[in-house]
Amino acid sequence: MADHRFHAPDVPSPSLVVDREALERNIEAMARHAAEASLALRPHGKTHKCPAIATLQVDAGAVGLAVATVGEAEIFGNQGVGDVFVAYPLWADADIGPRLEVLSARVRLTVGADSPAGIERLRRALSDTSLVRVIVEVDCGLRRTGVPPADAASVAHAALDAGFELGGVFTFPGHSYAPGMRDEARTDEERALSEAVEALGAAGIDCPVRSGGSTPTAAATGPGAITELRPGVYVFNDAQQVVLGTCTVDQVALAALATVVSAPAPGRVVLDSGAKVLGPDRPSWAPGHGKLPDHPNARVTGLWEHHAVVDVSETDPSARPRIGDRVAVFPNHVCTAVNLARELLIVSGGKVVDRWAVAAAGANR
Amino acid sequence: MADHRFHAPDVPSPSLVVDREALERNIEAMARHAAEASLALRPHGKTHKCPAIATLQVDAGAVGLAVATVGEAEIFGNQGVGDVFVAYPLWADADIGPRLEVLSARVRLTVGADSPAGIERLRRALSDTSLVRVIVEVDCGLRRTGVPPADAASVAHAALDAGFELGGVFTFPGHSYAPGMRDEARTDEERALSEAVEALGAAGIDCPVRSGGSTPTAAATGPGAITELRPGVYVFNDAQQVVLGTCTVDQVALAALATVVSAPAPGRVVLDSGAKVLGPDRPSWAPGHGKLPDHPNARVTGLWEHHAVVDVSETDPSARPRIGDRVAVFPNHVCTAVNLARELLIVSGGKVVDRWAVAAAGANR
Repeated sequence: MADHRFHAPDVPSPSLVVDREALERNIEAMARHAAEASLALRPHGKTHKCPAIATLQVDAGAVGLAVATVGEAEIFGNQGVGDVFVAYPLWADADIGPRLEVLSARVRLTVGADSPAGIERLRRALSDTSLVRVIVEVDCGLRRTGVPPADAASVAHAALDAGFELGGVFTFPGHSYAPGMRDEARTDEERALSEAVEALGAAGIDCPVRSGGSTPTAAATGPGAITELRPGVYVFNDAQQVVLGTCTVDQVALAALATVVSAPAPGRVVLDSGAKVLGPDRPSWAPGHGKLPDHPNARVTGLWEHHAVVDVSETDPSARPRIGDRVAVFPNHVCTAVNLARELLIVSGGKVVDRWAVAAAGANR
Repeated sequence: MADHRFHAPDVPSPSLVVDREALERNIEAMARHAAEASLALRPHGKTHKCPAIATLQVDAGAVGLAVATVGEAEIFGNQGVGDVFVAYPLWADADIGPRLEVLSARVRLTVGADSPAGIERLRRALSDTSLVRVIVEVDCGLRRTGVPPADAASVAHAALDAGFELGGVFTFPGHSYAPGMRDEARTDEERALSEAVEALGAAGIDCPVRSGGSTPTAAATGPGAITELRPGVYVFNDAQQVVLGTCTVDQVALAALATVVSAPAPGRVVLDSGAKVLGPDRPSWAPGHGKLPDHPNARVTGLWEHHAVVDVSETDPSARPRIGDRVAVFPNHVCTAVNLARELLIVSGGKVVDRWAVAAAGANR
């Protein structure tokens, strides 16, 4: 069954197109879930990097945005997002201090920290530590950044001693990005945040914010150990989330619109949506380098910078894409695909109804 | 042994930095090899996307540039590169025809084709087929684009019938990007081009250009079946090429300069050079998500958008990177890393001596 919702005339190929209605439904559904579970929703802006989408999220009830870099915080803050959390253990080098100071004049700023050394660096970079709130990162099993929950007090003490307001603790259950891991990751997340709150409580430190949440775990997260959700991918979803069972194909709101540029052998077609459009992400458990919603039996078996090789041998010959055809492709990981684009074409009712700049693309610092 | 050639004060983190001397040596070495082997050198510009580097390549003797998109051709052509080959089976949709016409006024333009349908589309998109030369793509074993060599004549006939000048044939031995495959891929490439030349000869069609070449195969390619080399990666090299044995660590000319932002557990440090800086490429045979030249025993075991997790447990404790330290990281695949950046910082003698715009970053069409 062909899924024509991403198709519109006059879209240059390759482009990233957004199904406006699916996007709005995704934003509303997550906002409703958070409200019903009495959780604050703070979507991660690194997924869309797009002020127009941040505005939709805030209008739907988000308390603010999470971001990964000061550059992203500046772009969203300058476009009217009034509350931004840099959910990253910032190392306040170079111009980071002055930039945070300028931004704090119009944005309630929070930054992550997972070491006393990082706190000390931040203190020295700022003329006034009251301009920025700190939240301590704890590790819930991803083994990336974040201290073990039991060690949260040492970082919290450093923040308080330096004069920062302490917001609480945060974690990222990123090990939810693997088949069958969602429930375990969510349990790990709740346990880690609870342990950290206990450790801080034992040290006499209050912990109002307990921030967690990823797209795979968000929908099953209820009130209790967690007070705030930070999912990112859910606005668009992607091929990975379909495989993980987080969403249906209908709930994927972004696709690359690509062209069949070559059909050099039976059962093989080649699209112009390569790794510089879709992003090269391919976890070991993904069945291909993306997914063609209009051709469920087709498989993206090879990806180079400007070529996506699609095996259509399992597709009915009469329904196979032909040379010159336009084809929609879901990226495996939408965050890296969007970061490669300069704009998103917003499609509704078979027409391009808007063009939104990916304003924070490349804002890596 | 610390490799300090990428380090300079006042480089913001993360940034892509280029060792000016290593870059110049790489450009000169490939130019010398091509000259000695009587091969035309047409470097692929998708690696650097940087007019300043194209100029160095042309000044060293390159006949022109290969590119993947009309957008890249425009950017290099507008900066003075007078001969550009879009080495891709272009599907001349939308504004491609008028753009090629404008560009042909100042650039000798060649485009790839691997189907009569693509040729017909190109003919209809142009007011005058004499403005563009066509080269037929053949497949030498990568199973991507390109017709089988024996079928080259059907595409060549379509091009000639449409009034295009026929330049010859080209192929890409991309299966050389795997350990132990270089010599086989090079033999496949020579055989495919020879077979295509024979097939065209039997049809009475002359074939002056036989274009091949990839960074792994280029140095071992001599005159004969091939008349033109199109390597891209060699200007910078990368972690993959070190693993493949194409280059030494000293011949890698580009690194991400990153900061240790977290050291949350013994033997683990985390850098701010994530997948949005290094690119997410990781072939199955790569030992990690990049390489730290200053720390040969360290391994990049995890990569997220803004985090590179480095296992330093095999590194002498006294020499391990500490929180706040600057560290150089070679990307696995330099082409996708450069496409993520907006500028390259050129370092020489421990100082930033130039800043070059990655002018064609994101030029996907």
